[in-house]
Amino acid sequence: MLIDKYNQRVDAINSLLCVGLDPDFDKLPTKFKQKKFPQFEFNRWIIEQTAEYAAAFKPNIAFYEARGEQGIHELKMTMDFLIEQYPDIFTSCDAKRADIGNTNNGYAKFIFDWLGFDSITLHPYLGSEALKPFLDRKDKVSIILCRTSNSGAGEFQDLVVDGQTIWEIVAEKVANEWNKNSNCMLVVGATYPEEMKRIREITPGVTFLVPGVGAQGGDVGDAVRSGLDKSGKGLMINSARGIIFSEDPAKAAKALRDEINQYR
Amino acid sequence: MLIDKYNQRVDAINSLLCVGLDPDFDKLPTKFKQKKFPQFEFNRWIIEQTAEYAAAFKPNIAFYEARGEQGIHELKMTMDFLIEQYPDIFTSCDAKRADIGNTNNGYAKFIFDWLGFDSITLHPYLGSEALKPFLDRKDKVSIILCRTSNSGAGEFQDLVVDGQTIWEIVAEKVANEWNKNSNCMLVVGATYPEEMKRIREITPGVTFLVPGVGAQGGDVGDAVRSGLDKSGKGLMINSARGIIFSEDPAKAAKALRDEINQYR
Repeated sequence: MLIDKYNQRVDAINSLLCVGLDPDFDKLPTKFKQKKFPQFEFNRWIIEQTAEYAAAFKPNIAFYEARGEQGIHELKMTMDFLIEQYPDIFTSCDAKRADIGNTNNGYAKFIFDWLGFDSITLHPYLGSEALKPFLDRKDKVSIILCRTSNSGAGEFQDLVVDGQTIWEIVAEKVANEWNKNSNCMLVVGATYPEEMKRIREITPGVTFLVPGVGAQGGDVGDAVRSGLDKSGKGLMINSARGIIFSEDPAKAAKALRDEINQYR
Repeated sequence: MLIDKYNQRVDAINSLLCVGLDPDFDKLPTKFKQKKFPQFEFNRWIIEQTAEYAAAFKPNIAFYEARGEQGIHELKMTMDFLIEQYPDIFTSCDAKRADIGNTNNGYAKFIFDWLGFDSITLHPYLGSEALKPFLDRKDKVSIILCRTSNSGAGEFQDLVVDGQTIWEIVAEKVANEWNKNSNCMLVVGATYPEEMKRIREITPGVTFLVPGVGAQGGDVGDAVRSGLDKSGKGLMINSARGIIFSEDPAKAAKALRDEINQYR
């Protein structure tokens, strides 16, 4: 199981931290902007600064696509560098994809095979039949959006069907039906700790990718207490802006790693 | 309103046809595979063959991403060609994106500004607050997934909330709340004509992007009868494989245009 790669890394460095590689071009320090491959050079620096605290790295592909094929090229350079230099660190492409079956083959090829990611984030709206090209990949991890971190997440996710919210139904379906290959995770925002607690009850064995701490306002302690599984793992807590655009990324990564561990 | 661009083209050539530019690399004729830019060259040929019948062109970006940055480059070449040669034809990027607010800026930049598309398809799961960077673009069209064409579409979309299915709720929200800038459309699969009829009742003034005729088994007559609006428009009926991989794409496009018009 590829999720073992994540858990082994967690144990090896005693960290549940995922560093979000979201190099928003406008926010890059000038010295990187002037380079030939600004996003890649910035990422390489961030990776070298934070790797010892990082159980996972998660680029959100939107920040690369914003620059067209140049950005995609630099994301590929970033992945080549990670695979070569840090093969033990779990990688996730925050791409939030999902199309109908045969079309998803193209996305799986792009994210898993061409870019070489260990995992991808996916929308549940088209159902598991459509997501088969991802779910069938036993060598990769599918991370399904369950409770997202944004303030308007509830517009659809809080709708109630026979006493259950949509996010509860997503959690239940993923845990009991979609996860046959033990290769599913869920996205659960740190900004909704009560919902996270409930999702942990529904899915005791599923690992959560947790966005929303730092700039988005989610509390680290609440998230860890709500989402930890019985083994003291089960969480991949992401921070992007709070680390990569801080004055000292290494220090910020270590501080968040340590803060998370206080509550484990 | 940019949707006027579509309607004007519909009237000018008397066609509701959208040609899906989905150049699955493995299926390309050998003579194109050998070229330096196989997907672009194939697209150029398809566009020249079918433009006189096409009210819209819709590339699904997954078929380009499958080839990494090379595919993205050829999609950009395709868009440059379309914008230069056929500025009257509406363009749609079937990208099925949706992230949280600030991240969506990257996708909007990529699809609307860098590639230059008139419209994009979007997942509703994160709600309208997240989709603001798309919905605020009065100069572009947001096409929200409502009832998708795949056989497993019902897994979430058919769930019932207070007597209404999720696809009915999506249709209602988009028509009454999200469409303030009159720049929204809905994806409604031809494979579900009864649902389409109901969505037309809920949203009399919204145009549907209709996938699912041809290879996916949707019936053209059923779709047109179910989805046409009072002006005899309101539909953008997509066919990809059935046209682009047919023996004679021009003939196939004309035939489908004419078949659609039989039922108008």
